[in-house]
Amino acid sequence: MQKEKLLYEGKAKKLYQTNEKEVLWVEYKDDATAFNGEKKEVLHGKGKLNNEISSLLFQKLADTGIRSHFVKKLSATEQLVKQTTIVPLEVVVRNIVAGSLHKRTGIEEGTELNQAIVEFYYKDDDLGDPLINNDHIRILQAAEPEQVHNMREQALAVNKSLKKHFDDCGLLLVDFKLEFGTTADGELLLADEISPDTCRLWDKETREKFDKDLFRFGLGSLQDGYTEILKRLGGAVHG
Amino acid sequence: MQKEKLLYEGKAKKLYQTNEKEVLWVEYKDDATAFNGEKKEVLHGKGKLNNEISSLLFQKLADTGIRSHFVKKLSATEQLVKQTTIVPLEVVVRNIVAGSLHKRTGIEEGTELNQAIVEFYYKDDDLGDPLINNDHIRILQAAEPEQVHNMREQALAVNKSLKKHFDDCGLLLVDFKLEFGTTADGELLLADEISPDTCRLWDKETREKFDKDLFRFGLGSLQDGYTEILKRLGGAVHG
Repeated sequence: MQKEKLLYEGKAKKLYQTNEKEVLWVEYKDDATAFNGEKKEVLHGKGKLNNEISSLLFQKLADTGIRSHFVKKLSATEQLVKQTTIVPLEVVVRNIVAGSLHKRTGIEEGTELNQAIVEFYYKDDDLGDPLINNDHIRILQAAEPEQVHNMREQALAVNKSLKKHFDDCGLLLVDFKLEFGTTADGELLLADEISPDTCRLWDKETREKFDKDLFRFGLGSLQDGYTEILKRLGGAVHG
Repeated sequence: MQKEKLLYEGKAKKLYQTNEKEVLWVEYKDDATAFNGEKKEVLHGKGKLNNEISSLLFQKLADTGIRSHFVKKLSATEQLVKQTTIVPLEVVVRNIVAGSLHKRTGIEEGTELNQAIVEFYYKDDDLGDPLINNDHIRILQAAEPEQVHNMREQALAVNKSLKKHFDDCGLLLVDFKLEFGTTADGELLLADEISPDTCRLWDKETREKFDKDLFRFGLGSLQDGYTEILKRLGGAVHG
């Protein structure tokens, strides 16, 4: 497998073409950004941690029958994925009230929800990734109604699987963001990454935060938090 | 019928008890507010115009079989309505892109939608009346799922009826906000008001605005705009 032309550089990853059709080479970067790019820093080791954690989680999902674009881990910071056309929606699942859900509803941070909730945000930096409803998705032609239904069902299945897995590791899966893409065959596939950049993860007992909120709100070392998550997931922690 | 104790004073109306059970006395005020109360003014004649227009529109809906809390007009600024417990949701129907829909989606202001869209906002001044989805409505216990479905259907029926009616009067019904309440019997009933305070109405040919945007953005005399709407609806314009 050969890395070829750079196709896309995002905030946290670079995507390259390969010599194999419909397979992309992903390189996780050390760049940390928050608040729609307003806060930015280079945090050495972050790319490695996210690549490790994301690979472990995609593999875990595959083991429980949940498909994704993940093909395999290549190196400390690289993985191979199936090429998809990303649906311009962020699908957020929440088990515990935090962040914007607290601001939107006034429900106290830390409140456990009886049942997970799902939110769709329109992926558009200029608009600030706004919350949208199914009617907005229709007029934006962001996805077909069946795709919306399918993403919701897949997101809830991912939640069920990962919530249990994190719980076994002493972590609370507070909320997380997924992205989906469509393959050349038209399959709607879980894509992007699942990492502490895209999940809120708290210690089950102390509710200490180990995720990107450490960076967002300057609460402590992001690398220490992500390393703790990787350790608890049973991953190999590099020096 | 006698006006009794003041039950509630809102931004645009006062509600009084009456000597009849489950009937309230509404008094439309001259106060204009916008941007969640940040902009405020007393505009003489506004209460009268909104009471007239709202009475005409509720009557029109009743004529086409759409029930509401409206009982009858009492005077230039007063009407009687059935008492309801207001559902803490603003139900917005949109036919043409304007205001927050433009900001949320980036779709150009003035774009006509193939099909009307419905939005639910959580009625909470402290939170700034945020857009919410069905899952948020559930965790806020703002309404039951069947009520949400019912409000959506009623809102679309109101839209169908009023859009046609305004069109016959040379006006475009761009968007509007409804509120619903439940009666003592548990009936979900269209409530609050339907007026240029709660609708965007543009001239069909010139797209001149005749609604509260005149006040929001200082575009011209609110009273002139509302008077034009009342005239076109065939209402009696008082001196």
